[in-house]
Amino acid sequence: MTGAAGFIGSNLVDRLLNLGHEVVGYDNFSTGSESNLERAASHSAFRLVRADALDLEAVVAAMHGCDTVFHLCANADVRFGPDHPRKDLEQNTIVTFNIVEAMRRSGASRIAFSSTGSIYGEHSVFPTPEDAPFPVQTSLYGASKLAGEGLIQAYAASFGIRGFIFRFVSILGERYSHGHVIDFYRQLRDHPGHLHILGDGHQRKSYLYVQDCISAVLLALDKAPDQPVNIFNLGTDEYCEIKDSAAWICERLGIKPAFTFEGGQRGWIGDSPFIFLDTTRIKSLGWKASLNIRQSVEKTVDFLR
Amino acid sequence: MTGAAGFIGSNLVDRLLNLGHEVVGYDNFSTGSESNLERAASHSAFRLVRADALDLEAVVAAMHGCDTVFHLCANADVRFGPDHPRKDLEQNTIVTFNIVEAMRRSGASRIAFSSTGSIYGEHSVFPTPEDAPFPVQTSLYGASKLAGEGLIQAYAASFGIRGFIFRFVSILGERYSHGHVIDFYRQLRDHPGHLHILGDGHQRKSYLYVQDCISAVLLALDKAPDQPVNIFNLGTDEYCEIKDSAAWICERLGIKPAFTFEGGQRGWIGDSPFIFLDTTRIKSLGWKASLNIRQSVEKTVDFLR
Repeated sequence: MTGAAGFIGSNLVDRLLNLGHEVVGYDNFSTGSESNLERAASHSAFRLVRADALDLEAVVAAMHGCDTVFHLCANADVRFGPDHPRKDLEQNTIVTFNIVEAMRRSGASRIAFSSTGSIYGEHSVFPTPEDAPFPVQTSLYGASKLAGEGLIQAYAASFGIRGFIFRFVSILGERYSHGHVIDFYRQLRDHPGHLHILGDGHQRKSYLYVQDCISAVLLALDKAPDQPVNIFNLGTDEYCEIKDSAAWICERLGIKPAFTFEGGQRGWIGDSPFIFLDTTRIKSLGWKASLNIRQSVEKTVDFLR
Repeated sequence: MTGAAGFIGSNLVDRLLNLGHEVVGYDNFSTGSESNLERAASHSAFRLVRADALDLEAVVAAMHGCDTVFHLCANADVRFGPDHPRKDLEQNTIVTFNIVEAMRRSGASRIAFSSTGSIYGEHSVFPTPEDAPFPVQTSLYGASKLAGEGLIQAYAASFGIRGFIFRFVSILGERYSHGHVIDFYRQLRDHPGHLHILGDGHQRKSYLYVQDCISAVLLALDKAPDQPVNIFNLGTDEYCEIKDSAAWICERLGIKPAFTFEGGQRGWIGDSPFIFLDTTRIKSLGWKASLNIRQSVEKTVDFLR
């Protein structure tokens, strides 16, 4: 598992160990943290490799004997993409090439890949299904993940690996470390009387609880039809406005700050004003989210506190 | 223009020079040839830069003062992709990153990009329109071009360049150097009594004459609506079976060889059994192909002879 020390990765490591699997965690700790792996570190079925996924030979060596690859490491930041355009290319596209190339060399047979709803760009179809009209990319992050999906699909066609591609909405929950909930939380910790919101607050977004996300990934690996490539949107059957989420956060914290808004439909370049994915496909396998968006936001606030 | 010494690139160089433009040709001559640029080389408005597009600094330097970038260099081979999977990543995806990054640094405003109908994979909608359901990649080549499209789109959204993306069918005509017509021609030159065809010969393919392709590209640059990203399929309103094309080639050469078939729906891994693009969008700008597929095949045979 690449990105094993990250938010989603470390939760997935714990779940897999609980289920009795052996797990090799791979992380360069550029954004992942030791503390996320505290529980796993004491488990005899867990082995940690501290290396960079841009190092193909190190990936090949770490993958020796593995059957299923969970590829979760990424530059997961949309907002600051234009500050360093090469970062998404390297950390998302070229690293994903290294992962599938290492699978070819090592004989690993399946890959589960954390893609993103951002690859739908600013779509016109809502909720957006997996086979929506061919989208146009609006962020370097989305483009780099689209490239990763294409590589996995081409390797599946060319070399017989099986690809499981998951297009996530934003994920919330324990060990969450990046996104609007932590941005708002930090602002309110520093000055509880005032919250500044990027955009006009009416951006409509979808969120999913990390344990629900992990359940969906594992269910798909278990139950998806025997095809070379399986693609699943992962999200809930609802969306919220950013200002609703802000209100829930404040209520959970027991404060009533004044809101100000930066203005504009988007919080930043590449920010999609509306993300709402059609999850019929994953639900048809028997999956259902256990928490709604408000509960996920509250769970995340409780974790951050 | 990257790939200026190649088949399509050199024809486009000549056209642009005839129209009175100044052209900087950029080529590493890995597959391009000096002879393709014989006419251009004597033209005062043409300057040749002999360098590799993986060298970002060289690309930035060459682009100085340019307004429109024609990005045509690529590893254009689908068939042998699985023999060297890194080649498509480097020569198509990473090079395209270098081109748009060089545009950002040099201030060039528009890019025309040679993408491919291969990015539709094995689609189920025919003729396939630009906004067909989100396809799944079936070749390393298609995946690498899809990644290039995504990069251009993300740079358009992030940095204000304008992208013109052309999804070509296979191109035929003068200076053609790669594909089934030359494969068949060489076989028949070496043994005129026998032609061996990969697949079952029923693969349905589309072709376009290089001068029609160039006319479409230039018309789109001139007449497309003022949007950040414009995507156009380029092809004819017809398709042919590979065995029909083989028959036309033989008739043009005045020979009647025996045909044998390798068998199977595909000529090789990643070969799409049916390519037929919807060209309504480019035709709505007033474009029309001057040659049909048979005429393009015959023109190519005459050139090879």
